[in-house]
Amino acid sequence: MENENKDPKETVNPETPENVTSGQAKPEPVEIADLGEFGLIERLTKDFPLKNESTKKGVGDDAAVLSFGNKEALVTTDLLLEGIHFDLRYVPLKHLGYKAAVVNFSDVYAMNGTPKQITVSLGISSRFTLRHIEELYSGIRLACEVYGVDLVGGDTSASVTGLVISITCLGEADKEEIVYRDGAKPTDLICVSGDLGAAYMGLQLLERENRVAAQSGNPDFQPDFSGKEYILERQLKPEARKDIIQALKEAGIKPTAMMDVSDGLSSELLHICKDSDTGCRVYEEKIPIDYQTAVMAEELNMNLVTCAMNGGEDYELLFTVPLTDHDKISKLRGISVIGYVTKPELGCAMVTRDGAEIPIMAQGWNAFVNK
Amino acid sequence: MENENKDPKETVNPETPENVTSGQAKPEPVEIADLGEFGLIERLTKDFPLKNESTKKGVGDDAAVLSFGNKEALVTTDLLLEGIHFDLRYVPLKHLGYKAAVVNFSDVYAMNGTPKQITVSLGISSRFTLRHIEELYSGIRLACEVYGVDLVGGDTSASVTGLVISITCLGEADKEEIVYRDGAKPTDLICVSGDLGAAYMGLQLLERENRVAAQSGNPDFQPDFSGKEYILERQLKPEARKDIIQALKEAGIKPTAMMDVSDGLSSELLHICKDSDTGCRVYEEKIPIDYQTAVMAEELNMNLVTCAMNGGEDYELLFTVPLTDHDKISKLRGISVIGYVTKPELGCAMVTRDGAEIPIMAQGWNAFVNK
Repeated sequence: MENENKDPKETVNPETPENVTSGQAKPEPVEIADLGEFGLIERLTKDFPLKNESTKKGVGDDAAVLSFGNKEALVTTDLLLEGIHFDLRYVPLKHLGYKAAVVNFSDVYAMNGTPKQITVSLGISSRFTLRHIEELYSGIRLACEVYGVDLVGGDTSASVTGLVISITCLGEADKEEIVYRDGAKPTDLICVSGDLGAAYMGLQLLERENRVAAQSGNPDFQPDFSGKEYILERQLKPEARKDIIQALKEAGIKPTAMMDVSDGLSSELLHICKDSDTGCRVYEEKIPIDYQTAVMAEELNMNLVTCAMNGGEDYELLFTVPLTDHDKISKLRGISVIGYVTKPELGCAMVTRDGAEIPIMAQGWNAFVNK
Repeated sequence: MENENKDPKETVNPETPENVTSGQAKPEPVEIADLGEFGLIERLTKDFPLKNESTKKGVGDDAAVLSFGNKEALVTTDLLLEGIHFDLRYVPLKHLGYKAAVVNFSDVYAMNGTPKQITVSLGISSRFTLRHIEELYSGIRLACEVYGVDLVGGDTSASVTGLVISITCLGEADKEEIVYRDGAKPTDLICVSGDLGAAYMGLQLLERENRVAAQSGNPDFQPDFSGKEYILERQLKPEARKDIIQALKEAGIKPTAMMDVSDGLSSELLHICKDSDTGCRVYEEKIPIDYQTAVMAEELNMNLVTCAMNGGEDYELLFTVPLTDHDKISKLRGISVIGYVTKPELGCAMVTRDGAEIPIMAQGWNAFVNK
């Protein structure tokens, strides 16, 4: 019993980033194994005050307790594996935590709902210290603060290999407000928020600089990211488009179908058209692309439109609205109308600048082949 | 679009267990990479019809949609990693799937709730074929059928190393019916369902037979499990105690505190006492132990009571009831009263057969040190 009652803060040695990163200073860093699973959970979750009325009980029992009254509950989950979904040579742990949480929030917004609670399960290999895991959690905490979400549970465990992150997010929405993928109708306008392809270009940049660093053989090599901050941030610290959901609500627009762009615009368009039993036409010249994305594609000799259509990880919202909302939607900042929905027999195609129609193919990110 | 519209059943070669396990027969087994992530999800989830009124939308959108009306929603999650939580040399994949689901249901029952929905995320390394993953899913499906739970979402991904399973379970309960860990009061009776230590002994048996097989050098070695079927089943195919929750409800008993025994009785007793700010006394002679568990402990020269107190993975329910429920609880089958709750200053102890008091220590399973 005594061990159970001890406050971890009293029994562990104080740490500073310095003595952890140098790996030599005393006192020794606290090891995860010293805390044990419950000690680790307690330590990692103590700085997450509950914020939501619907959260009745958070971490610390067999299950969290949520209450949604007359709202619908939404639930979404994501599993992130080291070596597949992220590479810690490029991604700071805090950013990784932030992104892991935000991509789940994005799924809830893509239903026109509001994220409210998350659970976070981690598999941690022995090369990670407590300081590393706290870095990861600091990113999750920041995301929870920015988006007003409660951490309500999870699981931590050793892993024999890399880092494993599994996040489940609960959200809520009024029943009549929920937007599915299957409601698009012929003549609806196809809209997308923000710009596309930047996150993918950011990843290309990180990979290039990593190769250059390896080839230089210089341990003090400094990558050159100047003038490319935007695409880097799009890759490392994406945001969920809570603001777009709010703007649509304020403008009195309810999309007929909606998804977030995680696998790539082509893949998401095909999902909406398949589920809605429609076709679509999108105009190459209407696809929103940032200047830095274009410069990077030029530098790497890659096809810009292909990157924007298939890059993925943009976490922008792709949605359809009735043609009658044209004037309303045109007034909103940060939303581009890129095409329209057709009857299913017309298929899905992109109309190029010279008027040719190119069939849209699913080239979204596939974890089983893009290794 | 054509690829998206094809029915997986029409485009893959028929498989039988024979041609997959032999690895030589034609046609070739379908590979996971051929299906892609969406094809795999579609294939794996098509045999899970939705059963619950509260499930408004299952797999196939950014998030599932649940509706709990005036019930409280419960959510719990578990991450299982190959090499840490399971060893595929011992555990058939179907059993693994069943157990992975059931341990989450057990957490919801331990709140006095009813499990309703699960999400299942998998990380799959290249040594697994589609047939393997379907085996795993067949166990999850069986668990969903037995316990009346809907599969509503998830994520599948490649893994650079072993198998990763992350399951989140949603459940519901009337607000006033939920039982937490912190409600135990001095003089409450401490009760446990079923018997303890059998799952741990089943694991010891599997590990022993595996060592014997390795030492024999005979590839046709057959392990000897005769007379030990019960402890094996407790390890490989545990059940959640839905029946006990129902029996308590029918008898008009609401526990004051409750947990499921996943880490071990000692660890769970300490949790309840810490959260309720109490102590406890449990009697060694009252701890329910099956005959096969005792025989196996004898064979392996292990302390039987230690195994029952610290073995873990029993998924029985540990709960406390007011002393005034003594007569009611005594009439229920399959429940043992093992001790009582005390004031906190008395600490937590086991009373041995000769009347000595031994402090209860947390020796529950710790994934960070029990590797």
